[in-house]
Amino acid sequence: NHYIVCGYGRMGRQIAADLKARDEKFVIVDAEEELEERLIELQLPYVIGDATHDDVLIEAGIKRARGLVAALTNDPANVLTVLSARELKPDIFIIARVTRMETESKLRVAGANRVINPYQIGGHRMALTLLRPVVHDFLDQIFHFGEGRNIDIGQIIVHEKSTLAGQTIGSSDLRSEHQVNILGIRKANDSLVITPNPNERIELDDTLIVIGPPEAIYMLERQNLVIDDEDDEI
Amino acid sequence: NHYIVCGYGRMGRQIAADLKARDEKFVIVDAEEELEERLIELQLPYVIGDATHDDVLIEAGIKRARGLVAALTNDPANVLTVLSARELKPDIFIIARVTRMETESKLRVAGANRVINPYQIGGHRMALTLLRPVVHDFLDQIFHFGEGRNIDIGQIIVHEKSTLAGQTIGSSDLRSEHQVNILGIRKANDSLVITPNPNERIELDDTLIVIGPPEAIYMLERQNLVIDDEDDEI
Ligand SMILES: [Ca+2]
Ligand SMILES: [Ca+2]
Repeated sequence: NHYIVCGYGRMGRQIAADLKARDEKFVIVDAEEELEERLIELQLPYVIGDATHDDVLIEAGIKRARGLVAALTNDPANVLTVLSARELKPDIFIIARVTRMETESKLRVAGANRVINPYQIGGHRMALTLLRPVVHDFLDQIFHFGEGRNIDIGQIIVHEKSTLAGQTIGSSDLRSEHQVNILGIRKANDSLVITPNPNERIELDDTLIVIGPPEAIYMLERQNLVIDDEDDEI
Repeated sequence: NHYIVCGYGRMGRQIAADLKARDEKFVIVDAEEELEERLIELQLPYVIGDATHDDVLIEAGIKRARGLVAALTNDPANVLTVLSARELKPDIFIIARVTRMETESKLRVAGANRVINPYQIGGHRMALTLLRPVVHDFLDQIFHFGEGRNIDIGQIIVHEKSTLAGQTIGSSDLRSEHQVNILGIRKANDSLVITPNPNERIELDDTLIVIGPPEAIYMLERQNLVIDDEDDEI
């Protein structure tokens, strides 16, 4: 029930730091032997090896892993890693980094559930910062994981046993009790309600996108187990 | 009153696309002569030349520019571009891309108002997507500028002449009239109120971080001119 982070380059390091700040269990996979000393120093679990190889992924515990990130620096290696991971564990949640736009669809065919292009995300953010710097500062504060962070964003899945189902947002204790606010709701039919009204009703199988104090969000997420919808699974 | 985008690489292209989607005026600066044909085809204004050179920035109209993005692929070139731009136009708003973390402070000393590291932002996003994919989908929908977008995020500065000053959030017509919601408020003393209560009072010099239909947000922003605070200026 851990995560596997393939590639400990610039992005891999940030991913590992974020997972550690959230107390998530993970293993780093990187072929570079010279990283070993540093990883031991940081007390991060690792496997030195090529993430595109089945035996390396097996050594990293893919059979019992919950999710995998393919964050290698070149697209072909990420495609092959995704194919290997999907074959070894059909129901694992896979995220892949992409550099060339045209590789995105290929990564999805290979089995990635989500594909992230750092240049696209970075470009969006630079344009936003140019036009609306205060919005950038706001996002920076929310997404800067780590010490002293007093705000986080989370997803709460409304299961059968959840006391939230059937209530309106205003009648729920999310805001009054937990200082947690709903930014959006993804409905069971995949439509998205953005900044819903207080009189909007919370329904079974809704996913609430929330913002608020980290402890309150983690507690609510634990009460409403974070699972992924089935429609992206291979 | 235009923007200058230095570097038409992977990030520069995304920045140009986003600015175009928002009908903002801009000029691209890149030293690569082979880009010329493509830029003409896309009908994008450009200057072929080295952005670290004063004469090239002057040709791009820096004296009357509102903001500049240094999105070149190497850090030293971005530092020099920022220094040149800051010297040529002391009050311009400057954003710089950085690759190595340690260059960030140097870019700030050189005169950048904000510094963006695509690997850091991409890494944050990958970790978030791994743990909370629905939040990623939500952000993707908000920040994917372009055709068919029905939601945007904006910043509204509450000036003396604004009718918002003195009202509570609940009593203002932001939500009831414009379907615009307040995600946060940056107060005049730089503190941040996140997802404020409906009874929170809007004050003079607040900056409201809002989410809602693009047309409503642009209209409200135009009514409340988007300017930057003075404390980051050199
Ligand atoms: Ca899925
Ligand atoms: Ca400023």
